[in-house]
Amino acid sequence: MPRYTPPLRDMAFVFDELLDVQAVLARFPDAEPIDSGTIAQVLEEAGRFCSEVLFPLNASGDREGCRFAAGEVSTPAGFAAAYRAFVEAGWPALSCDPAHSGQGLPSVVNNALYEMMNAANQAWTMYPGLSHGAYECLHANGTDAQQRTYLPRLVSGEWTGTMCLTEPHCGTDLGLLKTRARPLEDGSFALSGTKIFISSGEHDLAANIVHLVLARLPDAPAGTKGISLFVVPKFLPAPDAADGLGARNGIRCDAIEEKMGIHGNATCVMNLDDARGWLVGDAHRGLNAMFVMMNSARLGVGMQGLGLTEVAYQQSLAYAKERTQMRALTGPKAPDQAADPIIVHPDVRRMLLTQKAYAEGGRAFASWLALQIDRARHEPDEGARAAAARAVALLTPVAKAFLTDNALECTSHAIQIFGGHGFIRDTGVEQYLRDARINTIYEGTNGIQALDLLGRKVLGDMGASLKAVGAEIEAFIDAEGVKAEMLEFVDPLADLAQKVQKLTAELGMKAMADRDEVGAASVPYLRVIGHLCFAYLWARMARIALDRQPDGDPFYAAKLATARFYFARLLPETAAQIRMARSGAKVLMALDADWF
Amino acid sequence: MPRYTPPLRDMAFVFDELLDVQAVLARFPDAEPIDSGTIAQVLEEAGRFCSEVLFPLNASGDREGCRFAAGEVSTPAGFAAAYRAFVEAGWPALSCDPAHSGQGLPSVVNNALYEMMNAANQAWTMYPGLSHGAYECLHANGTDAQQRTYLPRLVSGEWTGTMCLTEPHCGTDLGLLKTRARPLEDGSFALSGTKIFISSGEHDLAANIVHLVLARLPDAPAGTKGISLFVVPKFLPAPDAADGLGARNGIRCDAIEEKMGIHGNATCVMNLDDARGWLVGDAHRGLNAMFVMMNSARLGVGMQGLGLTEVAYQQSLAYAKERTQMRALTGPKAPDQAADPIIVHPDVRRMLLTQKAYAEGGRAFASWLALQIDRARHEPDEGARAAAARAVALLTPVAKAFLTDNALECTSHAIQIFGGHGFIRDTGVEQYLRDARINTIYEGTNGIQALDLLGRKVLGDMGASLKAVGAEIEAFIDAEGVKAEMLEFVDPLADLAQKVQKLTAELGMKAMADRDEVGAASVPYLRVIGHLCFAYLWARMARIALDRQPDGDPFYAAKLATARFYFARLLPETAAQIRMARSGAKVLMALDADWF
Repeated sequence: MPRYTPPLRDMAFVFDELLDVQAVLARFPDAEPIDSGTIAQVLEEAGRFCSEVLFPLNASGDREGCRFAAGEVSTPAGFAAAYRAFVEAGWPALSCDPAHSGQGLPSVVNNALYEMMNAANQAWTMYPGLSHGAYECLHANGTDAQQRTYLPRLVSGEWTGTMCLTEPHCGTDLGLLKTRARPLEDGSFALSGTKIFISSGEHDLAANIVHLVLARLPDAPAGTKGISLFVVPKFLPAPDAADGLGARNGIRCDAIEEKMGIHGNATCVMNLDDARGWLVGDAHRGLNAMFVMMNSARLGVGMQGLGLTEVAYQQSLAYAKERTQMRALTGPKAPDQAADPIIVHPDVRRMLLTQKAYAEGGRAFASWLALQIDRARHEPDEGARAAAARAVALLTPVAKAFLTDNALECTSHAIQIFGGHGFIRDTGVEQYLRDARINTIYEGTNGIQALDLLGRKVLGDMGASLKAVGAEIEAFIDAEGVKAEMLEFVDPLADLAQKVQKLTAELGMKAMADRDEVGAASVPYLRVIGHLCFAYLWARMARIALDRQPDGDPFYAAKLATARFYFARLLPETAAQIRMARSGAKVLMALDADWF
Repeated sequence: MPRYTPPLRDMAFVFDELLDVQAVLARFPDAEPIDSGTIAQVLEEAGRFCSEVLFPLNASGDREGCRFAAGEVSTPAGFAAAYRAFVEAGWPALSCDPAHSGQGLPSVVNNALYEMMNAANQAWTMYPGLSHGAYECLHANGTDAQQRTYLPRLVSGEWTGTMCLTEPHCGTDLGLLKTRARPLEDGSFALSGTKIFISSGEHDLAANIVHLVLARLPDAPAGTKGISLFVVPKFLPAPDAADGLGARNGIRCDAIEEKMGIHGNATCVMNLDDARGWLVGDAHRGLNAMFVMMNSARLGVGMQGLGLTEVAYQQSLAYAKERTQMRALTGPKAPDQAADPIIVHPDVRRMLLTQKAYAEGGRAFASWLALQIDRARHEPDEGARAAAARAVALLTPVAKAFLTDNALECTSHAIQIFGGHGFIRDTGVEQYLRDARINTIYEGTNGIQALDLLGRKVLGDMGASLKAVGAEIEAFIDAEGVKAEMLEFVDPLADLAQKVQKLTAELGMKAMADRDEVGAASVPYLRVIGHLCFAYLWARMARIALDRQPDGDPFYAAKLATARFYFARLLPETAAQIRMARSGAKVLMALDADWF
C-alpha cells in the first residue's frame, strides 16, 4: 500500500536550524509568541490528518472524479467527511486573524500545512485552499460589514470561497473580460456573464460558497483599469437565519470540465444571471484588490508543486528499495536475492536524488519566502518590513514557476523509476504527473511569472530588489568563502551570483532597445534565479550539516550528500539557461507567423 | 476541429534534398528501383489514410478505451474498420520481403509511414506496429515451414503479432523470467506462465494473433543465456481450413490494464496454460533472436515520439495563430482585434520553435538512420554494409531515447501553449502527453538505452563506431567550415564534436576504474550525442536552405530560421549535460540507501 510520511524531521530542520523561525517570530510585537515545540506539535498533528485522512482519498478521488447533475456537484466519496473533520479540527483558522476568530499562526506554519495537504491530496486541498484565498482578499479589501458577514464563516470553514476571473475568451488577459455588473438601488449589483475554469465553484462540502467575481461596471473604461471586484455568495447571507443562509443567488454551475488531472476538484463553468453582488474595494480597481492575495495564492500553487514532488519522491524511493532488477554495475549487492534492488543503479539514484534535492531545496526556499511574508507584516522596523515585502514580490513568481516546473520533472521521474508499472493506474504515480500538469498553468502561467519576474520585478525597479536579496547571498559568501570545507559550495554559488549580475545588466540594456528581449529571456532567466536561491539555501544547509556531522546523525550525512548532488547535477542547468537567456529575441521573432 | 496535416513537404525535403534517397536506393543491386516521385505518391496516399481515417479515431479511442470481458477485448469504435481499410490498401506489406508477398519498399519509406500513423493515432498504430515486429523476427529467425505458415498472413495483415517478454517480476531484467516450455513428443512445446504488459495481446481486429514468447526450456541455464523464443499462435494454424485456423490455443488474456494513456491499445495480462508453441531459432538463444528485431522496434518507438511531437506542434501552432490574448510587448500587431494572436509573444514562439525544431530535426535524423538500415541490408559493398550496420547499432538507442524525451517536452509545451484549455479533455492536446509518457519506458527504458549507447556501443568498441560517424561529421565541417555564411552553424558543431571526443575519452578512463561511472554519465551523454546528430543534420539543412534562398520559397526561409533557433536555444543544453556527464559517480553513490 502506498503511504505518505509527513516530512516532519526535515521541516524541523528548516524551521529550527536553517531559519530559526522561533527567534524571528519572537521579534514581532503584534503576534502571539510561539515556540518551536508548539510549531512542531501543530505540524505533527497536521501531518497525521494529511497522511491518515486525505492521502487515502487521493487515488479514489482521482478515479471517481466529481459528478455534475442539475446544477449540483457531488465530490468523490469521502471528500465531504474529510472536510468536516478538517473544519472540526479548526485547520481553516490556523493562520487567520484572531480578530475574526482565527488562530493567528504565522504564514510559514500554514505554508507547511499546505505542503502536506497538497502532497496527500491536491484536488481536495484546492477546496480549502481557495477559501483561504477568498478570506485573505476580503480581509484586505472588504468593508467592515462584509468582513463581519463573511470572514467568521470562512475562518471556521463553514463556508468556502472561490475566485471567478477567467472567461472563455480571456485567461491571462483579464482586460478583455465581459461579465457585467449593473448597479441596483440598494447599493448592491446584479452581475451577468459566464466564468470558466472556476476551481471549487460548486460542491457538496459546505453550506455556502463565497464567490469573488471580477466584472465591469456600466461606466467602466476598457481594459484592465475597468475591472471591479464583487463578492457574490451562492446563498445570500441572512444574519437572522439560524444557518445564516437566505435566498439562492443567481450564480449557478452549468457544467464541470473533463480534465487531465485533479479529478477530485470540480472545475466549473459558472453562469451569472442577475446574480446579486457587492463591490469589494474601489470601483475599477478590482485587479489591485485581487493582486493583494496573488502573492500568497502563487506561493500556494508552488506548494502544490512541492507537495507533489515530495510524495512522488516517497513512492519512488519505496519502490526503488523494494523492486529488484539487474545486478549493480560493480557486482551483486544483494547476493541472497536473484537481483539487486534498483536503488543500486546510478541512474535510478540520479532520479531519486533529483526528487530529494528539489523537495528539500523547495521546502527551504518556500519556508524562507513564507517567513518573509510574515516579516513583511510584522517586523517592528518599517525598513525591515519593506525589505521583506520587496523580497516577497521578487521571489513569489520564482516560487510559483520553479517549484511547479521541478514538480513536472520529479513526478515524471517517479513514473520512470516505476518503469512500466508507473504507467499503470493502480500504482498511483501517474496521477502525480497528471495533477502536477495544471500547476504550471493556473494562477498565471509560468511564462507570465517569468515576465513578471524579469520585466516588472527586476528590470522594473532597476534591479534594486534583486540587489537586496543578492546582498544577503553576498554576506554569506563573504563569511563562508574563507573556509576550506565550504569552497565546494561557495565557489559555484559565487560564480553564479556574478553571472546573474552580468546577465541582468545585459538584459536590461537589450530590453531598452527592444521589449521583446524581455520575453525572449524571461523563462530561462527565471530558472537561473531559482537556482541562485536554491544554491544559496543548499550551501547554508550544507554549512549546518557540516557543523552537525560529529553528531553521527545520518540525517546530516544525507543532507550533505544531497547538497553535493545538487551542486554537481542540478545547478549545472544554469550553464545552458544562461546561454539561452542571452541568445536574444531575433532568433525567436525572425520567422513570419505565416511561414511556421 | 483539430486536424492533422501529413508533413509531406518536409518529408520530400528530407528524402530528396537532404538524403537523396533515390540515388542511394539506385545503388542496391537486389532492391527494386524506386524513384522519388513514386515515394512521394506512396507517402501522400499514406498521409491521406492517416489524416482521414486514423486521426478522427484518436480522441474517441482515448475516451472509449478498450473493454475486456470473458477473455475477449473490444477495441474502441472504428478501430476494426480502420484496420480493415489498412489491410485492404496493402499497407502492412509495404516494406515486407517480396518473397513473402511483400512490396519490398525500403525501411526509410516505411518509417515515414509510421511517423504519420503515430501522429494520427499511436494507440491504433501499435496493433500493426507490433505485427511488423513479429514479421521481422520470424523473417530473420523462423524455419522455412514457420515462414510459410506465418509470414504471408502477417504480411497481408490478416493476422497480427505480439512480443511477450515482460513478466510481473521482470521487465528490464529478462534473465529472471520464469515462463516454462515443456517439450512435447512431436517436437513442439507446451508453455506455461504469465506475461504482463503485452501490447495488442488480445483484440478484435484480426482473425489470429501470433505471439512471440520468451520462455525457459527444462534444461535451461539460469539468466539470460537460458531463454528461448517460441511462436505461440492464438489459434493453431490449420493449412487445410479455408480461414487457416485450427483449434484455440492455451494462451489467453486474463485482464487489461488501466493506464495513463494509449487507452485505445489493449495492454494485456496473458496467461499461458500448456499453450502449444514452436521453437524459433536456437534453444537458449531467444534473446539473440529477439535482438534482431530490436533495432527496428526501438526506432519504431522513436517514431512514436516523433509523430506525437509533430501532431502536438500542429495543434499548438493553429491555436497560437487563432487565440488572441494580450498585446505584443512591442505594441499591437492586430490593431483590428481586441488583442493579438499569441504567436506574437516571444515565449510562445520559443515553445513553438522548440516543437518545430525537434520535429524537423527528428524527421531528418530518423530518416537518415532508417536509410542506414536499408544500406546495411542492401549496399553492394560489404564494407559499406558493415559501416551502416555499425551506425545503426550506435544510434538506434539515441533515436529511441532522444526522440521520446523530446516528445515529452514538446507535448507538454502543447498543453502550455493552450493554457488552461490544454488541461481540458476536449481540446485533445493533453492526450498527447499521456500517450507520449509510455514511450520513454517500453522497449527498454531510456536509461537502458543510454547504458547501451555509452557502455556497449561507444566504450564497448573503444569508440570505433562513434569515430566512424564522427568522420562523416568532420568531413562536413572541413568542407563547410571555410564558408563564411556557414560559420554560425559549423563553429558550434565543430566545438561540440571536439567536446564529445574529450568527454568520451574521459569517461572511458573513468569507467575502467569504476563501472558505476558509466551509469552515472550515460543519460546526459546520450542527450549530448543526440544533439551532436541534430546539430550535424540542422547544419546540413541550413546549407541547403542557404542554397535555395534565391528561389524565394518561404519553406527555405523557415528552415533557415528554425536552424538558427536550434543552434541558439536547443543546442546549449549540451553545456549543462556535459557538466553533468562529467560530475562522476561518487556524488550519486555516496549516500547509503537507508539514509535516503
